[in-house]
Amino acid sequence: MAEQTVYKPGLDGIIATETNISYLDVDAEEIVIRGYELIELAENKQYLDLVHLLLRGELPTNSEKASLEEELKREYSLPENFFNLFELLPEQTHPMDALRTGISALAGHDTDLNEREEEQTKHKAIRLLAKIPNIVANSYHILHHKQPVAPKQELPYSANFLYMITGKEPTEKEAAYFDQSLMVYSEHEMPNSTFTARVIASTNSDIYGSLTGAVASLKGNLHGGANEAVMYMLLEGKTIDGFRNLLYEKLRNKEKIMGFGHRVYMKKMDPRAALMKEALRELAEEKGRMDLYEMCDAGEELMREEKGLYPNLDYYAAPVYYLLDIPIDLYTPIFYAARTVGLCAHISEQHANNKLFRPRVHYTGPRNLHP
Amino acid sequence: MAEQTVYKPGLDGIIATETNISYLDVDAEEIVIRGYELIELAENKQYLDLVHLLLRGELPTNSEKASLEEELKREYSLPENFFNLFELLPEQTHPMDALRTGISALAGHDTDLNEREEEQTKHKAIRLLAKIPNIVANSYHILHHKQPVAPKQELPYSANFLYMITGKEPTEKEAAYFDQSLMVYSEHEMPNSTFTARVIASTNSDIYGSLTGAVASLKGNLHGGANEAVMYMLLEGKTIDGFRNLLYEKLRNKEKIMGFGHRVYMKKMDPRAALMKEALRELAEEKGRMDLYEMCDAGEELMREEKGLYPNLDYYAAPVYYLLDIPIDLYTPIFYAARTVGLCAHISEQHANNKLFRPRVHYTGPRNLHP
Ligand SMILES: CC(C)(COP(=O)(O)OP(=O)(O)OC[C@H]1O[C@@H](n2cnc3c(N)ncnc32)[C@H](O)[C@@H]1OP(=O)(O)O)[C@@H](O)C(=O)NCCC(=O)NCCS
Ligand SMILES: CC(C)(COP(=O)(O)OP(=O)(O)OC[C@H]1O[C@@H](n2cnc3c(N)ncnc32)[C@H](O)[C@@H]1OP(=O)(O)O)[C@@H](O)C(=O)NCCC(=O)NCCS
Repeated sequence: MAEQTVYKPGLDGIIATETNISYLDVDAEEIVIRGYELIELAENKQYLDLVHLLLRGELPTNSEKASLEEELKREYSLPENFFNLFELLPEQTHPMDALRTGISALAGHDTDLNEREEEQTKHKAIRLLAKIPNIVANSYHILHHKQPVAPKQELPYSANFLYMITGKEPTEKEAAYFDQSLMVYSEHEMPNSTFTARVIASTNSDIYGSLTGAVASLKGNLHGGANEAVMYMLLEGKTIDGFRNLLYEKLRNKEKIMGFGHRVYMKKMDPRAALMKEALRELAEEKGRMDLYEMCDAGEELMREEKGLYPNLDYYAAPVYYLLDIPIDLYTPIFYAARTVGLCAHISEQHANNKLFRPRVHYTGPRNLHP
Repeated sequence: MAEQTVYKPGLDGIIATETNISYLDVDAEEIVIRGYELIELAENKQYLDLVHLLLRGELPTNSEKASLEEELKREYSLPENFFNLFELLPEQTHPMDALRTGISALAGHDTDLNEREEEQTKHKAIRLLAKIPNIVANSYHILHHKQPVAPKQELPYSANFLYMITGKEPTEKEAAYFDQSLMVYSEHEMPNSTFTARVIASTNSDIYGSLTGAVASLKGNLHGGANEAVMYMLLEGKTIDGFRNLLYEKLRNKEKIMGFGHRVYMKKMDPRAALMKEALRELAEEKGRMDLYEMCDAGEELMREEKGLYPNLDYYAAPVYYLLDIPIDLYTPIFYAARTVGLCAHISEQHANNKLFRPRVHYTGPRNLHP
C-alpha cells in the first residue's frame, strides 16, 4: 500500500538519491562537483580535467590527463558502415533524434554489453565520450547531404569536436570558450536527464539504454532544448527593441520564456549563466557583435523586472554557440555530449548501489465499474 | 534549497503523480484500470477493448472496436526501406535494442512531431500500436537473416502479431491466450518504464522519445527483462528436481530470483500471475507439457516457503510464451508492445497537465576542495 506522503508535483524538493558526484548548494551559491566548485574549475581547468574528476573522483595529474586524451583519441572511430544509419533517416530528423538513434544502435556493437562492473563501465564511458562528438557532428552533416568530417588527431579533444562541427580549425580563443561551455554543461546534480538515466539504470538496464533515454529527456524545451529555442527567439527579435517587444508579447500570452527560470535557482542567477555571459561579452567584442550581447542583456533586465526571473545557462550558451558558427540545432546535442560524462558517473554510481525506482500515484479516476 | 524530506531509496512509497489511468489497490487486491478491475477485464474482454479503454477512457461499443481495429490495420506498414535499419545492426543486437533503435528512428518520419494536442497524441499512439508489433517481429527476423513476415489483414490484431512472430497462423486458443497476456501486460500504474516515459515527457519532449526511454527501462531484468530470464532459468533447471536445486543454489549465493517479488505486492501473489498460471495449466495440458507447469508450481512453492516471496506476472508469462513457440528474446519486446498503450495514455496525461520532474539529492561527497 502507498505510504501517505505529501504529493509534490514534479518531485519538487524530494530527495531521489544519495550521491557523491555533485550538489547545488543554493545558499552558498556553489555548484559542488566532487567537492570542487564548478565555476572555479571552469575558470582554471579544462574539460578533460572535469572528465577525469567526474569519472575517477579526482583531478588528473598532467600525465593522467595526457593518457586520458590519448585513450579518447584511440576511440574516436565508429564501427564500419555506422554512418549508413544516418543516411536512412529522413532529412527532417532532428539532430537529437539522430543522436538518440545512434547511441541506441551502438549497443549492439558492444560485446560486453551486460557487464556492470565499475571499471568496465568507466571504459565504456570513455569510449562513448570519444564517439559521441563524432556522432553529433557527422550525423548532422549526413542529414544535410554533406561529407562527414573525420576527427583530427593533432587537435585537442574539444577543439576537434568544434572542428568536426564547423569543418574549420578553431582559433585558440574559440576553442577555449567552447571548452569552457563543455565544462559548465558537464554535470549539474539531478536535472531531468540525469534522473532519467538513473531511473533506467535502476532496472539493471545497460549504459546505452540509460544514455538513450537521457537524450530523449534533454531534447525537451523545458530542459536542454531551451538553448536552441533561445537562439531562435534572439534571431526573431533581431534588435534590442524587437527582442523586448517579443518578450512582452510572449509574457502577455502567458508563454514560458525559454532560457529563464530554474527549479532550483528560481530566484537567483544561475552561476553558470554569469560565466557564459562573460564569455559572450568577450567573444562579441572580438567578433564585432556587441549588438547580440546587448540584446541578451536587455532581455535579462526585462525578465528580472517583469517577472523576477533570472537567465539560466542555456540563455547565454546559445549566443556563444552562435558566435562560434555552430548550427542552431546542434546546440542541444552539444549540451548532451558535454553532459555524457556526468550521466556516465551517475549510471555507474546507480549500478554500484542500486535500488529500483518505482514510486506510487494518487489515483483520481473512477472505481467499481464492471464490464 | 532542498526541503528536508525523508529519503526513500527508489522512491519507495513516494507519490510521483496524480493519474486517472490506473491504480494498484493492494488492500482490495484490485488492479484498477480506469475504474475497472484488470482481471475481470482480462477474463471477459479482449486486448482491443483495453486499448480503447486506456486511450479513450471508456470501453468501446462493438462498432467503435471494429473501427479501432480497422484504423490499426491501415497503419501496419512501416516507412519505405525502414527495415534496412535492422540490416545495419550487428546480428548479436538484442531485440529490445533493435526495438529501441526502431522507435527512435520513427520520430523523423512524423511530420507532426512537435504536436502535443491530446487528440493528435492519441492518433500517434494508434499509429505506434499498429507499427510496433511489426517492428518487434520483423526486426527479429531480419537480425536472424530471415525474410520479414508481412502482416495479414484478415487476422485479428493480436492474432496477426503472433502470426508475424512465429510465421504460422495461431489456433483460436493460442490467439486467445496470447491476447489475454497482452491484456494483463497493458497497464500497471507506475512501474519504472511508465515512470521513465512520464519523466521524459515532462521536459515537453515528444512521444517517440518517451517511448524510446521506456524500452530502455523495460529491458532491465529487474523489470520486463525478467520474463526472458525466467525462461532461461526454467530451461536450465530442466526437471522439477533440477529446477529446485537451481533455485536453492541461487538463494545460497544470495542471487535475486527472476520472476519473484514486486515492490508493491511483495507479500501477496500478483493477481496477473494467478491468471497466467491458469492459462499455463490449460495450454500445458493441451500441448502435453504438464511437466513445465509442475516445474513452475514447484518453484512457486519453494520460494513461498523459503523466502515468503510470490511469483509476479513475468514468472508465468514466460512459460506461456514458450508454449506458444515464441523465441525467448522476444518475450520482453512483446511485454513492451502490450504496454505501449498504457505508456501512451500516461504520456498524453503528462503533457495535458505538466510539471517538470526534477528532484534533489543527498550529497555525501567532500566539500571545499580547490583546484
Ligand atoms: C526550468 C523550469 C521548467 C523550472 O520550472 P518549475 O520549477 O517547474 O516551475 P514552474 O514552471 O511551475 O514555474 C513557477 C512559476 O514561475 C513561472 N516561470 C518559470 N519559468 C518561467 C519562464 N521561463 N517564463 C515565464 N514564466 C516562468 C511559471 O509560469 C510559474 O508561474 P505561476 O506560479 O504563476 O504559474 C521553468 O523555469 C521553465 O520552463 N523555464 C523555461 C525553459 C528553460 O529555460 N529551461 C532550461 C532550464 S536549465
Ligand atoms: C521486483 C523487485 C526489484 C522489487 O523489489 P524492491 O521493492 O526494490 O525490493 P528489494 O529488491 O530491495 O527486495 C526486498 C527484499 O526482498 C528480497 N527479494 C526481493 N525479490 C527477491 C527475489 N526475486 N529473489 C530473492 N530475493 C528477493 C531482497 O533480496 C530484499 O531482501 P533484504 O531486505 O534481505 O535485502 C524485486 O522483487 C526483484 O528484483 N525481483 C526479481 C526481478 C523480477 O522478477 N522483476 C519483475 C518485476 S514485475
